[in-house]
Amino acid sequence: MTARNGNLQVLLVAYPCGLPQERDFMTADGPIPRPSDGEILIRSIFLSLDPWQRLRMRDPQQFGRQYGKPVVLNEVIPGAVIGEVVQSRNPRYREGDLVEGKLGWQNYAVSHGDSDRSNDGEGVSKVQTFGLPFSLLDVGRPRPGETVVVSAAAGATGSVAGQIAKILGCRVVGLAGSDEKITFLVKELGFDAALNYKTERDLRESLTSQCPDGVDIYIDNVGGPIADLMLALMNDWARWVVVGHLADYEKPLDQHFGVRAQGHVLARRMRMQGFIVHDYAAQFPIARRRIRQWVHEGRLRYREYIAEGLRSAPRTFIEMLNGANLGKTLVRVGPYVESVPR
Amino acid sequence: MTARNGNLQVLLVAYPCGLPQERDFMTADGPIPRPSDGEILIRSIFLSLDPWQRLRMRDPQQFGRQYGKPVVLNEVIPGAVIGEVVQSRNPRYREGDLVEGKLGWQNYAVSHGDSDRSNDGEGVSKVQTFGLPFSLLDVGRPRPGETVVVSAAAGATGSVAGQIAKILGCRVVGLAGSDEKITFLVKELGFDAALNYKTERDLRESLTSQCPDGVDIYIDNVGGPIADLMLALMNDWARWVVVGHLADYEKPLDQHFGVRAQGHVLARRMRMQGFIVHDYAAQFPIARRRIRQWVHEGRLRYREYIAEGLRSAPRTFIEMLNGANLGKTLVRVGPYVESVPR
Repeated sequence: MTARNGNLQVLLVAYPCGLPQERDFMTADGPIPRPSDGEILIRSIFLSLDPWQRLRMRDPQQFGRQYGKPVVLNEVIPGAVIGEVVQSRNPRYREGDLVEGKLGWQNYAVSHGDSDRSNDGEGVSKVQTFGLPFSLLDVGRPRPGETVVVSAAAGATGSVAGQIAKILGCRVVGLAGSDEKITFLVKELGFDAALNYKTERDLRESLTSQCPDGVDIYIDNVGGPIADLMLALMNDWARWVVVGHLADYEKPLDQHFGVRAQGHVLARRMRMQGFIVHDYAAQFPIARRRIRQWVHEGRLRYREYIAEGLRSAPRTFIEMLNGANLGKTLVRVGPYVESVPR
Repeated sequence: MTARNGNLQVLLVAYPCGLPQERDFMTADGPIPRPSDGEILIRSIFLSLDPWQRLRMRDPQQFGRQYGKPVVLNEVIPGAVIGEVVQSRNPRYREGDLVEGKLGWQNYAVSHGDSDRSNDGEGVSKVQTFGLPFSLLDVGRPRPGETVVVSAAAGATGSVAGQIAKILGCRVVGLAGSDEKITFLVKELGFDAALNYKTERDLRESLTSQCPDGVDIYIDNVGGPIADLMLALMNDWARWVVVGHLADYEKPLDQHFGVRAQGHVLARRMRMQGFIVHDYAAQFPIARRRIRQWVHEGRLRYREYIAEGLRSAPRTFIEMLNGANLGKTLVRVGPYVESVPR
């Protein structure tokens, strides 16, 4: 299975405390794996950096039950990758095919051939990002004229979810952490309003005035004190989609102390529901088609922040968690050559 | 509209702080109202005491937005009543009809004729109580083999909800606050297990051992620290039905400090939903038929705690909130004469 080295890999060497530090990561030169019968060898092109990876970087001793399997120390960090098949021992794949899979932070990986074929010339952002917010609307179920608030609205999930809500006829208000993001949301993506939660003097007051008819859907990527505040703004029959809780990632679930949602959930007969993207995998093909059409029609825009080289992954990941990047964060690991559709 | 006195009424004279005290209430001799055209005059027979009434006894100045309309000081306390039509100016009702309505803590009330006719010889408990837990299962959607935990399980809502879950093939574990209630739940109602949350040395540990396959549905009547603890026991795709939060009734919604549910809701892709009974009024007739059949077959049992006389209502209400009573709490306000079905 193992042979010559030449497979640059990024490993987690310590569970981060708070915002990860570069010293929590290490690059190593591992062997390029050899595919067995039925497997393919994939060269990574784009690595998708996503907040869920921070959730997996928590010490299982300390956190107990959590969201997905924790990253194992000194092993390759898991992550979605778009790559090129460079060796195939699976009749369904040819060399040169572009595939997508959870191949991790490394230059080469073998797959059991269950990767999605993705040889339509579209990169990670057009696949991974777009499956997510579309499926999410399944939980939120927006209706025309409703008010939707999105937190981390300039991020990969929030920016697309908000735009789809606009397409469906909702009033959309975004929350983000810099004036550049606010401008992007309103001027470029067409949000009805956006608020910088870091600088608003009275965020609750500002949200109330931007949501004169209350809030019907909250797409919550951050949790924390903003969630506590949002609870009081929700309308009867509101839907609260829990996508992430970045504000509390550093704490075990039992120590997310704040306002208990239950009283508000009852008073407003609200529905609060957790959303994990891979539960909706069966709908991805439909989502992609629809999304592609909206992009083609100019109704849906996206931004990518692309860092260069696998070695930049830890720094870029930290920047993303810190809110420094705008749009979907990718790392270009190797050259991207558009494959010829067969 | 007003005439001779003779209508004993219970008024709220002060918003309670914590558990209500008898001094927060006052009885008064008000006028017996006269029905206008299209109205009926009703003599109260049974008064239904329910925890939601405590929720309405909160100072609107202090609590802001809340669950339903607050009780107005020095006015009659609202409440569901079964009564007898003693004067009818509405062709749909005859004198002697038994009706049900939100007529309040008083001997006589007029109704605009939109009361449910209830002349089948069944009292409040067979109507009010049973509409609630049946509809509630619409939100929880139990499946055979699932584990259901019910808090305030010996109360009017919990005891029936738990039994229906048993009928539907679930494992049912009840939480209650006295050994008498625990015995009642297991021996009389057939719960699989019941735990006294006041005396269990390690409630989490006990719940874990009584729910070896985790918890699929939590029917939450109490909120508070028990809710914080339950969050960690829920299974993937669990449903959390918020029916009440007795533990936090004394605090404004924004001050229900404890564990934020959102992290658990995400990790378990849980659905947490508020339940308010009157939203399901359209289903009450179906629920009654089904419930009546189960009672007839001996599959569903209920207990009533009946206090005598309207003057006992405040004390009985305080006892109910304090967990002193077992089953549905009623006050017999006047003589019950079975009416002849017409």
